[in-house]
Amino acid sequence: MGDDLLEDQEEAAVLINEAGGSPYVLVCEHAGNRIPRALGRLGLAEADLTRHIAWDIGAEGVARLLSRLIDAPLVLQRYSRLVYDCNRPPESAGAMPEVSETTRIPGNENLRAEDKLARIAAIYRPFHAAVAAVLDARAAHGQAVNLVSIHSFTPVYKGKRRDFELGILHNRDTRLADRLAKGFAKTDVRRNEPYGPKDGVLHTLDLHAGVRGLKHAMIEVRNDLIGQERGQEEWGQRISVALRYAAQELE
Amino acid sequence: MGDDLLEDQEEAAVLINEAGGSPYVLVCEHAGNRIPRALGRLGLAEADLTRHIAWDIGAEGVARLLSRLIDAPLVLQRYSRLVYDCNRPPESAGAMPEVSETTRIPGNENLRAEDKLARIAAIYRPFHAAVAAVLDARAAHGQAVNLVSIHSFTPVYKGKRRDFELGILHNRDTRLADRLAKGFAKTDVRRNEPYGPKDGVLHTLDLHAGVRGLKHAMIEVRNDLIGQERGQEEWGQRISVALRYAAQELE
Repeated sequence: MGDDLLEDQEEAAVLINEAGGSPYVLVCEHAGNRIPRALGRLGLAEADLTRHIAWDIGAEGVARLLSRLIDAPLVLQRYSRLVYDCNRPPESAGAMPEVSETTRIPGNENLRAEDKLARIAAIYRPFHAAVAAVLDARAAHGQAVNLVSIHSFTPVYKGKRRDFELGILHNRDTRLADRLAKGFAKTDVRRNEPYGPKDGVLHTLDLHAGVRGLKHAMIEVRNDLIGQERGQEEWGQRISVALRYAAQELE
Repeated sequence: MGDDLLEDQEEAAVLINEAGGSPYVLVCEHAGNRIPRALGRLGLAEADLTRHIAWDIGAEGVARLLSRLIDAPLVLQRYSRLVYDCNRPPESAGAMPEVSETTRIPGNENLRAEDKLARIAAIYRPFHAAVAAVLDARAAHGQAVNLVSIHSFTPVYKGKRRDFELGILHNRDTRLADRLAKGFAKTDVRRNEPYGPKDGVLHTLDLHAGVRGLKHAMIEVRNDLIGQERGQEEWGQRISVALRYAAQELE
């Protein structure tokens, strides 16, 4: 493997609506399901790469719509979380998982240090540098930031059903999550479900928001609700209403 | 001011003993007191730039000695904290302070967004990228990391005397700090003094260690004890003994 895993291929981070005037900055770590050419299909069947293990189904569509609706910058990530999960630090076994849910990922077994470093350098670092650059620019201009991460979850995980529609996840700082939870009407919202701080899913928020004292929350939508464009539009609208409500409450 | 504040000048981050085999990785954010040429002396007298407001007196000497004694990588930062304090995020008023202790810093008044961004890009980001690269390499190789930040404090701050010799600072994760505190004999050690988490002085440790689940601590030595080489040697030796003790206790 060469030094540059993504040579001649599209970069990991995509920056959308950089100058958006919203107090929100949106991120979507699991937007894409691409695999760098040199890694083949990680030993998986084609169909596995469209399952939730590879990406957050529907999250990119919802995030892009939100970015337009509320005029917020959005940083999204194109490559599959099976190559590198940008919501995990390099120490985490989940960063380049050998097993995802119950599926073996052959292409992630027995990785050498240089293989891991190539993925960190090509995907993890550029994505987080792009987020940091947006936040640095806002800090320099004295603009507020509410950092919101857009995800989706699978309705059945390891055989267990999850019936609720939407999760709001957060760590110790609940300023945004508290307001956001109130901004949803007629939605079955849960706090720190289907995951919470103990599951290590708050890495991006801890890294960029917790450490800088910025308000933040993670939104998880059940993926069967947003698998198609129509659902993405409905949920993009609903979430935008809640985000606007929360921003007013925080003022 | 050009895009590159440090054009033709030495880079902010210095990486020493990169391949050191110690479980410790050392950082020294306030090692240097240089000012980029374009910023003159920030409107200060020459003598102000040798005071503790500009840097951590003696910390570089202690950190370099420790790096040799325990064979640990060390990342140090050459420029004055008055230009950019690498132990503060860009949002912090202390990152480019208009007043330090009781001294006005004229060159930091009324900074434009582009001036701030030039300092962030030239100093803050490269320093933290250098630390992250050391930690990423260790993660890829499966090597442990105890992150230790070396600082010094002034014996008199805003007119108040501080008589103790050494502070061990930490946030919620006290695994390393607990062992380290026991490793000092005949030293007047305080926990979370002269600063603590509320003072925002744990930025580097939160960013690189807290977020990644790595053990960590910050060591603050009273600067009159390490102003000269002899004191630096004495305290380098003492701290190395405590670090070795703590590493054994953690095994």
